[in-house]
Amino acid sequence: MSEQITLYTSKSSPYAHRVELALAEVGASYQSHEISLQHKPRWYAHRINPANEVPAMTYGGPLVPPTRPSADSTKITQSLIINEFTADLYPDSTFTPKNAVSRAKARFFIETVEKKFVPHCRAFIWRGGSTDALTNSLEYLQTILPENAKFAVCNDFTIADAAIAPFIAQLVVSLDNNLGGYIDGEAEKVLATLRGPKCSKVWRYWQAIREWPSFRATFDEDYTRAVFLTTCPQIRARTQAARDRMVTRLHRREIRRPHVFEVTDHDSSLCT
Amino acid sequence: MSEQITLYTSKSSPYAHRVELALAEVGASYQSHEISLQHKPRWYAHRINPANEVPAMTYGGPLVPPTRPSADSTKITQSLIINEFTADLYPDSTFTPKNAVSRAKARFFIETVEKKFVPHCRAFIWRGGSTDALTNSLEYLQTILPENAKFAVCNDFTIADAAIAPFIAQLVVSLDNNLGGYIDGEAEKVLATLRGPKCSKVWRYWQAIREWPSFRATFDEDYTRAVFLTTCPQIRARTQAARDRMVTRLHRREIRRPHVFEVTDHDSSLCT
Repeated sequence: MSEQITLYTSKSSPYAHRVELALAEVGASYQSHEISLQHKPRWYAHRINPANEVPAMTYGGPLVPPTRPSADSTKITQSLIINEFTADLYPDSTFTPKNAVSRAKARFFIETVEKKFVPHCRAFIWRGGSTDALTNSLEYLQTILPENAKFAVCNDFTIADAAIAPFIAQLVVSLDNNLGGYIDGEAEKVLATLRGPKCSKVWRYWQAIREWPSFRATFDEDYTRAVFLTTCPQIRARTQAARDRMVTRLHRREIRRPHVFEVTDHDSSLCT
Repeated sequence: MSEQITLYTSKSSPYAHRVELALAEVGASYQSHEISLQHKPRWYAHRINPANEVPAMTYGGPLVPPTRPSADSTKITQSLIINEFTADLYPDSTFTPKNAVSRAKARFFIETVEKKFVPHCRAFIWRGGSTDALTNSLEYLQTILPENAKFAVCNDFTIADAAIAPFIAQLVVSLDNNLGGYIDGEAEKVLATLRGPKCSKVWRYWQAIREWPSFRATFDEDYTRAVFLTTCPQIRARTQAARDRMVTRLHRREIRRPHVFEVTDHDSSLCT
């Protein structure tokens, strides 16, 4: 492995965290450059990722300062694609399962995470999304985690685990500190599900992830809590205000309409 | 390759067609079983794919009749995952690009197809979805197709091409025969874009696909046309009726509201 690798990352992005896990797992040498999600530099969309999303990777070409990317490097974007690429670069690592069937299982797990867990997890934390949708998706994860393996596919931490670990980690920090766009009381409900019998495998899986060396090396719990402390109270206030408005509207409707609803075929005298 | 492969497929499913292309490309021996999308047998969800979707593959275990699947085979679902699996089974075929950078490009192309092309293509054909959204996605495809290669990533037909070919094929049959949920006149607009300068690479790409042996061996244009002939007129009638209702509603609003809209700060005398 002699080609240069530069990772454009953000400490607060779980998508970027996926790639940091991958690079740690395969033991890659790379340079890293933090991109502010709020104030992305202009050159980033222009010269690295036209979609202006983090993470992105440059591969090959000359070793240059990350702020002056070379036109000669390959630009690779989207966390799951970068992780498959990283696995391809290091075929002898344990980051991709060795046999085709296990790789298919890893990709099925990733697909499930991407479509059925991540959207509900992020909606819950950042927009006060449905608690039921989130707990249902946690219970679904329980059904696809194996009985007799430490991680999602086997006893190695693979591409499947890197896809979900950053999102469970953010969720747990959010729940443990009652910091999220959801209203008061919802964190306790989700925690009760997560620690209860319906999610026993998910909880055991999370314990295995949080102890794993590459995860410990790449996850900064204090930083995540600090980000949540700065941003979540405002979101929660908006969620709470929106719910209050909805309750008020429903209440008004009930006050305005009872006589309309009381008019039935059995009580038509009221129509006169 | 001594393990048995059974493909559960459907002639009218472009998702199943993706896998047929993959298996043809790698030259796999397999048995195939047609599943009626309208009347799926009960055992299919129970013993093959709990999501009850086509395609699915069984791999390994004893060679059994497809209607009596063995519990000992691995069940693999979702067309893109099956195609990655097929590529993994035949690493020496040209179906997956040899180097990691080209594989990343193939996966980026597939991701784009899945998120930015397929939804608009299917919405247009089957629900009379937006013509602009479809032509925009075709124009976007033009920007990511290479200048100097026959197919999406290189001169070989790869996993990237198998992901899109069935959908372009259905779209072209639909447009050429003016059969789809869209209203009259829309097919001509899309065809004009597809054959025009803004989609020159897309059109050339489609010509390369339609001449390619594995595509010719797996695509039945007459059957596709017959399916469209049976189903599309009803859908179009519903689309047309929905549009007519919308036009009527808008027309009524215009009749009702013109004086309200004419009241401006510059003409406040009308308020008196």
